[in-house]
Amino acid sequence: MGGDIPPPVDELAAVSLTNDEASSSTVQKARFSDRVRIQSILGRPDGGAGLAGQKVRISGWVKTGREQGKGAFAFLEVNDGSCPANLQVMVDASVSDLSKLIATGTCVTVDGYLKLPPEGKGTKQKIELSVVEVIDLGTVDPGTYPIPKTKLTLERLREFLHLRARTNSISAIARIRHALAIATHTFFDEEGFLYVQTPIITTSDCEGAGEMFQVTTLISTTEKLERELIENPPPTEADVEAARFVVKERGEAVAELKAAKASKEAILASVAELNDAKANFAATEARSRLKPGLPKVDGKIDYSQDFFGRQAFLTVSGQLQVETYACGLSDVYTFGPTFRAENSHTSRHLAEFWMVEPELAFADLEDDMNCAEAYVKYMCKWLLEKRYDDMELMAKNFDKGCIDRLKLVASTPFGRLTYTEAIKILEEAVAKGKNFDNAVEWGIDLASEHERYLTEVVFQKPLIVYNYPKGIKAFYMRLNDDGKTVAAMDVLVPKVGELIGGSQREERIDVIMERLEEIGLPVEPYEWYLDLRRYGTAKHSGFGLGFERMVLFATGMDNIRDVIPFPRYPGRADL
Amino acid sequence: MGGDIPPPVDELAAVSLTNDEASSSTVQKARFSDRVRIQSILGRPDGGAGLAGQKVRISGWVKTGREQGKGAFAFLEVNDGSCPANLQVMVDASVSDLSKLIATGTCVTVDGYLKLPPEGKGTKQKIELSVVEVIDLGTVDPGTYPIPKTKLTLERLREFLHLRARTNSISAIARIRHALAIATHTFFDEEGFLYVQTPIITTSDCEGAGEMFQVTTLISTTEKLERELIENPPPTEADVEAARFVVKERGEAVAELKAAKASKEAILASVAELNDAKANFAATEARSRLKPGLPKVDGKIDYSQDFFGRQAFLTVSGQLQVETYACGLSDVYTFGPTFRAENSHTSRHLAEFWMVEPELAFADLEDDMNCAEAYVKYMCKWLLEKRYDDMELMAKNFDKGCIDRLKLVASTPFGRLTYTEAIKILEEAVAKGKNFDNAVEWGIDLASEHERYLTEVVFQKPLIVYNYPKGIKAFYMRLNDDGKTVAAMDVLVPKVGELIGGSQREERIDVIMERLEEIGLPVEPYEWYLDLRRYGTAKHSGFGLGFERMVLFATGMDNIRDVIPFPRYPGRADL
Repeated sequence: MGGDIPPPVDELAAVSLTNDEASSSTVQKARFSDRVRIQSILGRPDGGAGLAGQKVRISGWVKTGREQGKGAFAFLEVNDGSCPANLQVMVDASVSDLSKLIATGTCVTVDGYLKLPPEGKGTKQKIELSVVEVIDLGTVDPGTYPIPKTKLTLERLREFLHLRARTNSISAIARIRHALAIATHTFFDEEGFLYVQTPIITTSDCEGAGEMFQVTTLISTTEKLERELIENPPPTEADVEAARFVVKERGEAVAELKAAKASKEAILASVAELNDAKANFAATEARSRLKPGLPKVDGKIDYSQDFFGRQAFLTVSGQLQVETYACGLSDVYTFGPTFRAENSHTSRHLAEFWMVEPELAFADLEDDMNCAEAYVKYMCKWLLEKRYDDMELMAKNFDKGCIDRLKLVASTPFGRLTYTEAIKILEEAVAKGKNFDNAVEWGIDLASEHERYLTEVVFQKPLIVYNYPKGIKAFYMRLNDDGKTVAAMDVLVPKVGELIGGSQREERIDVIMERLEEIGLPVEPYEWYLDLRRYGTAKHSGFGLGFERMVLFATGMDNIRDVIPFPRYPGRADL
Repeated sequence: MGGDIPPPVDELAAVSLTNDEASSSTVQKARFSDRVRIQSILGRPDGGAGLAGQKVRISGWVKTGREQGKGAFAFLEVNDGSCPANLQVMVDASVSDLSKLIATGTCVTVDGYLKLPPEGKGTKQKIELSVVEVIDLGTVDPGTYPIPKTKLTLERLREFLHLRARTNSISAIARIRHALAIATHTFFDEEGFLYVQTPIITTSDCEGAGEMFQVTTLISTTEKLERELIENPPPTEADVEAARFVVKERGEAVAELKAAKASKEAILASVAELNDAKANFAATEARSRLKPGLPKVDGKIDYSQDFFGRQAFLTVSGQLQVETYACGLSDVYTFGPTFRAENSHTSRHLAEFWMVEPELAFADLEDDMNCAEAYVKYMCKWLLEKRYDDMELMAKNFDKGCIDRLKLVASTPFGRLTYTEAIKILEEAVAKGKNFDNAVEWGIDLASEHERYLTEVVFQKPLIVYNYPKGIKAFYMRLNDDGKTVAAMDVLVPKVGELIGGSQREERIDVIMERLEEIGLPVEPYEWYLDLRRYGTAKHSGFGLGFERMVLFATGMDNIRDVIPFPRYPGRADL
């Protein structure tokens, strides 16, 4: 590139390479590239057959390649990530050095003609590409390529986070995850909710600092100071005394000159020397107080020296903050990363994960349940409509029931029962001989085994359990009239158990303050939250959906580390 | 709520309160509430007039209230955040205690009849609500309410982050910000890009740790240890020696019993005592090594004891990570929070801000520019189409040119010129007497004053400047054939200057390694990034848009702290 580049022709979108009119025999070029996406060819209802004869440029990575006809030509299966299917690409030895093309992982950009595969070959392909020119080539040394054709386990793939998006499974999950995220924004936008980006760094320690990551610049400033103190040791007490002595001497000199009625110039010069000595003493004394280690005041870390002037953490939930927007803008949601510093090594926990948290003003618990159910159904329908190809891949490779599960959830009204009813059902099961690891009695927090038994065995569909004992729920959940339960709800789904947790929020200032006292939480950090109840309080409700849980539910994957691009967990934060 | 709640009737969406058929005289209820959004009334083309006679429930906060007719009735201006306009609500004294309704900030839910305002009143309202019942009330003590009717400065409002969403300006900005975010996802989804959530916590220190926040659990574990050591002081050297001596004694006892051919039981008992002593010694010795302060090895902090087993930071950009997905899935983007621990107190910097970073495979710098231009134009068109009401509010209250600016950007092809050409224009300006604070010569990084001069004065439209000197740009930008410049581009717009920075990425392994060496960066931390070039390398390009910059550009606001819900900057991270 050089010189002036003319502005683009206004609408670049659909360009036919053959200048045909837009029709089913026209291929659509990617708007910001000179290639055609493979999805635009193979994703057509006719599988691409109607495009036979057209010249196209495609790009992608070789999944498998093989030379045939004693090296006369090669077949490449090429994938560009736009869909799970590969385009079959045929290259003649006269066109290119075939040995450089066939290694798995090779990146190719080629021009060629789309043509119908020979009849009777029994292949699934409806179309293939016959290459006339190799435009660009990114080779691979198969001896060192970390993810060759031989299938690696998902666990092993986690060692290569930077390359695993090139595999069938991880790329299908990425497309499904994308679809769920877009479905989320589309659903809430259509329903009139505003997307509010709640803070990642927070000084509200709402669930106990033990599980929170700290965000700080104190360690780096301390290390810098320590290095500096080694290079340039701080003054000793003797140095400080010496500096103090100089001040005393200079002071006396000034006094003497004044007493001797010396010239103004002489006195001024002497005063200047005194001031220098004072400044030097102050600096020496201040420096002598510098100590290695984190800065402390009264034995505690002095966070006034940290970046935000106080201790700061990574958020564990945007709920409390998003409530401030609900109490003014009515219907809002946040969709962002949240963090837990739990030392959990399970397949269900991450240190960094994404949450969707809607908050509805002028809505009670039933409205909240209706919203949660509509949202989950919407995502399931969206996936069935937009990413059926990837769902088929997941059904084939990982969980044959995953498509049926999406259909079930999309079409079946969720069961709804109170916590008290749920406990009764579990107790009856125990009476009939069902074994649980965790004892069942009114007041317990339902364990995952209980939740999955209810949704998978008893009801065999999604369930909403509501009205939980207040003792196991947070202070901000609205106290029911029975004085024992709160207006909380959990959505349980087959495969993952709890997918959503929500509640109507306590809007009564006196009740919420009693609850804080009951639980033994200090009021001061929540003053801003209480202000929402003090001034123009509004009935409101909300819930949180663990986004990776939803991806697990949809894909049927077992390990949460495989459904987020860059998993963070104890001991690992690659890249 | 109590007992069993029946599942919702399948489609709750559009419900007419008067059971009319869907028509222009039908009001649409919010789907997950029993209220009607004010936007559904006032946002109609007829301003709501066609709904006269309908009974509706509305909710919202009182903007202004006044009693009239000697206390016979009250007029309330009610806003629910769904649009900038307020609904005029009339309440008769026979319906409710008016004194509790009229304070600014009061939250009301009321049932009433929509009716046409009396003719000849000269009001703008096309419809008002005559209340028959007050359903819910959240009162306000005007004496203590922090954001009363009297207008507070934006600066003062930042003291009340939890309440400022109730003001006209901040709520309009929130709706505009929402629209820009949805436009972003819609644009990239329509163009076939996948949304990839890049990590927030990263161990890739790509721009120097000095400006990065550290994420750690080391301080809290150290503090816990220090408290524990005070409560329960570690063993002294003498304690350790004593424990060692017990082991020696017990060892001798065992030897003596064996020599004396004592009974098996006696020997076993003695061995058991020896083992206890050994365990005690090991524990005592380990505990004696515990020291206050951060754990250290060889004088350096021992990050193997931190949560991720190494030093971790908050990301400054998702670009390098999102490239790993582009090099496998082709077209991707990330939209998430990024962080800088810079001690900047300007109106243009935040410690936490959101970035949109698309990455396009098989795309060169020109494709990249085309994408950036199309994306910015799309957002401008979207705003003009979806939030014209809020843009009018911004034009009226803050920046009268903001709507014209959106129209200009939406409709005008962006200028494109090389950095070298830009420098020439600036030098000519200087020759003609233009004064800049920063000297102009080939090789400088353009300062904000230069950028704004080019876009606002010279060209008076958005500009893309490209092909920058390599010395002022990052190592990953593609070296041009001249060996002096790289294929980088910046999009400059009136009002904010640089809105977007992007580049074609260096895909040649040998060139990128030379660049690393030239700049003096170590290769090891970038091995994963180099792997993308080692194995199946692909031409690719991308850019980053500072989302708050875009909101500033659109709204015409001056301070970045007012266009993000919860601003974080040195000394402040409220909530």
